[in-house]
Amino acid sequence: MEAESVVETGNRTRLSRRASWAGGEPIANILMAKALANPDIVSLAAGFVDQQSLPVEPTKKALDHLFADRTAALAALQYGTTIGYPPLREVIAARMAEADRSRPIDLDRIVVTAGSNQLLYLVADSILDPGDIVICGAPTYFVFLGTLQNLGARAVGVACDDEGIIPEAVESQLAHLAARGESARVKAIYVTTYFDNPSGSTVSADRRAKLVEIAKRYSKEHTIYVLEDMAYRELRYYGDDVPSLYSFDAERTHVVAAGTFSKSFSPGIRVGWGILPDALMEPVLSLKGNIDFGSPNWNQTLMHLVVAHGWFDEHLEKLRATYRTKIDTMLEAVDRHIAPVAPVHSIRPTGGLYVWLTLPEGIDTGVESPLFQAAVEEGVLYVPGGYCYPAEGCPAARNTLRLTIGMPDCEAIERGTAALGRALQRVL
Amino acid sequence: MEAESVVETGNRTRLSRRASWAGGEPIANILMAKALANPDIVSLAAGFVDQQSLPVEPTKKALDHLFADRTAALAALQYGTTIGYPPLREVIAARMAEADRSRPIDLDRIVVTAGSNQLLYLVADSILDPGDIVICGAPTYFVFLGTLQNLGARAVGVACDDEGIIPEAVESQLAHLAARGESARVKAIYVTTYFDNPSGSTVSADRRAKLVEIAKRYSKEHTIYVLEDMAYRELRYYGDDVPSLYSFDAERTHVVAAGTFSKSFSPGIRVGWGILPDALMEPVLSLKGNIDFGSPNWNQTLMHLVVAHGWFDEHLEKLRATYRTKIDTMLEAVDRHIAPVAPVHSIRPTGGLYVWLTLPEGIDTGVESPLFQAAVEEGVLYVPGGYCYPAEGCPAARNTLRLTIGMPDCEAIERGTAALGRALQRVL
Repeated sequence: MEAESVVETGNRTRLSRRASWAGGEPIANILMAKALANPDIVSLAAGFVDQQSLPVEPTKKALDHLFADRTAALAALQYGTTIGYPPLREVIAARMAEADRSRPIDLDRIVVTAGSNQLLYLVADSILDPGDIVICGAPTYFVFLGTLQNLGARAVGVACDDEGIIPEAVESQLAHLAARGESARVKAIYVTTYFDNPSGSTVSADRRAKLVEIAKRYSKEHTIYVLEDMAYRELRYYGDDVPSLYSFDAERTHVVAAGTFSKSFSPGIRVGWGILPDALMEPVLSLKGNIDFGSPNWNQTLMHLVVAHGWFDEHLEKLRATYRTKIDTMLEAVDRHIAPVAPVHSIRPTGGLYVWLTLPEGIDTGVESPLFQAAVEEGVLYVPGGYCYPAEGCPAARNTLRLTIGMPDCEAIERGTAALGRALQRVL
Repeated sequence: MEAESVVETGNRTRLSRRASWAGGEPIANILMAKALANPDIVSLAAGFVDQQSLPVEPTKKALDHLFADRTAALAALQYGTTIGYPPLREVIAARMAEADRSRPIDLDRIVVTAGSNQLLYLVADSILDPGDIVICGAPTYFVFLGTLQNLGARAVGVACDDEGIIPEAVESQLAHLAARGESARVKAIYVTTYFDNPSGSTVSADRRAKLVEIAKRYSKEHTIYVLEDMAYRELRYYGDDVPSLYSFDAERTHVVAAGTFSKSFSPGIRVGWGILPDALMEPVLSLKGNIDFGSPNWNQTLMHLVVAHGWFDEHLEKLRATYRTKIDTMLEAVDRHIAPVAPVHSIRPTGGLYVWLTLPEGIDTGVESPLFQAAVEEGVLYVPGGYCYPAEGCPAARNTLRLTIGMPDCEAIERGTAALGRALQRVL
């Protein structure tokens, strides 16, 4: 091989169109690079879960149980099926029906995936062609925006308030797209129904019913699916559970519900699931079959034991107490360190991992902004809200930011929030 | 919602083009449906691994070790990174360099995936647009053919013999495609270099060097990658290891090497990896970030402990002995039960899980053939060779079939092969 062609090699790679659509540097990397300037920085940005409460003991109990039965251990080490381990799918179905007080859920509609995120990816890839549209909240979960971008799909944002995505805003956007002759492009509405990432809002029961009704009414030439992301459902610290948006779809034809044990148990074990309309099962399983033949059997067996023996619920109770203290700490710290500095709005979440702040208009939170720079210097990292807005529809509010209680302990939450207050003071 | 529109719902789902390209019923399902006719059937078809030798004890040892260090256990239950757990990538790099006697491998070029299959999927999705071409052996690994179909890509088959894919056949196909003005479409050459699935052949060292040279020489306007599938490398029962095809790419610019612990340790834990040219790292990580944020940290930590403590190599030695006995049993059974019935050709594999038989011309092995029907009645299931051929290029040899030693024990291998001999006798 001649030296000249070796040198050129890097430039000659021709990626697929999809790869070329993918958005370069992940947000986490951009933020971490900025954080290097201050080694003592508190990250109120990282989407990790609480470290000290991770379920070492329940995991050990489940594995001790598994190793005590050699036949079961051997089976867990073997290949499973693409759709997933039947006993795990049974407990997922039973818990969902119980939480929703709904009729039983058909096991043939449940697929186990690598977290809820893989389920969202599989469904998106199964229904979206380049140029197709997904209606999202503004703001919305930024990783899903990356997935849509990678597929060449368009995310169109609609207004949200403290009760989540506004059905009337969804409907008016659908009508607007219809008027522009783009109805054929609209394939789905994406909504995180419990303790939204990033906004912390929970969609009210009334709105859940309306969203299903709107999706069905606008499903004219083809089905418009509602993708319900329930990743944080189990992390409720106050009040009562709300039936899933899925449960409002009596025919079970229009809603995809995605859940996960990543937030409620362990992201390192990474077991999630989807409950799908019948029409989506074959394409999703076909794609998953090509990607990984099904999620690791070992992890599915482990999660089944954890749930079936009641260790999951035991753990969840402790986890909720931990996070309840942390969210109280953060909300109290926001009241004490930030509210006196400037009028801020925050949805007061009753669960989940996120607090979303809207600062006074004109205060940009972006990574190149004076506020972000001041925050790094003062010792805190946050996620600029601008990353969480779809490219179309409702414009990005650049005076917003996301804080998380996931990784930091109460002391760090207090310290980080105080640092943000000082940073805000500096840029006013 | 009116009853009428409910009834129509199923028909109104509009899938993506990619989903519509996916090939309906998985082959395993088709075969299993046929097998229902005979409950005592021996499956020499299923792509599972040996059940009784699955590594319960090494897994337990690694987990005992992990649970003894609470900090490490907590970290394993937390999110990791998209590229994968650094200590695991280190041992993968070290083992690869040692096996190949090559210079060290840069950790930034290694990504951990859900088996080698996910790596192949990620690379394929990163480089292939619909209509793009991948050169494959004829026969080749049928799951990868499904992946290519799902991406709308074209698999073009070239001739193979007992030493694997024939470089001259690859070159003449490349020249043929160039003459037809399709060079811009050719993106990769896919080859399972060790104990091929389905043919059992191992590509000779001489051919490895030639394949790299050909890929480089034909990389004119853009890079043509060689996708080296090393899924069975560790399962060698006779003879010495051969350096990877990857090791013949001195510049490390044209070869993607995919490996896995699924066959050599446990498919239920499902940890694989890829070693990639620099230009492919960003697109592959971006796509993997959208799908699952990285493979489960727990499984990666476990596999690292298993390898680092030497338990993997201990296990591998026992596993090789188990499979050596099984492959000897199958080859001997073929000699005894099939060769006397009709002249058959088989590559005598020195490793891996597969024995590929070429029957006399004119004997169709397909699921609707008299032979398949007779085989089910006699009590054996095999994979018809026709599934393993790309749609273009070298025509399918319909008188071929794949047998596997993975799941069945020696008694079942003997019984299944004898049944195949009787079935063959019936259709001659």
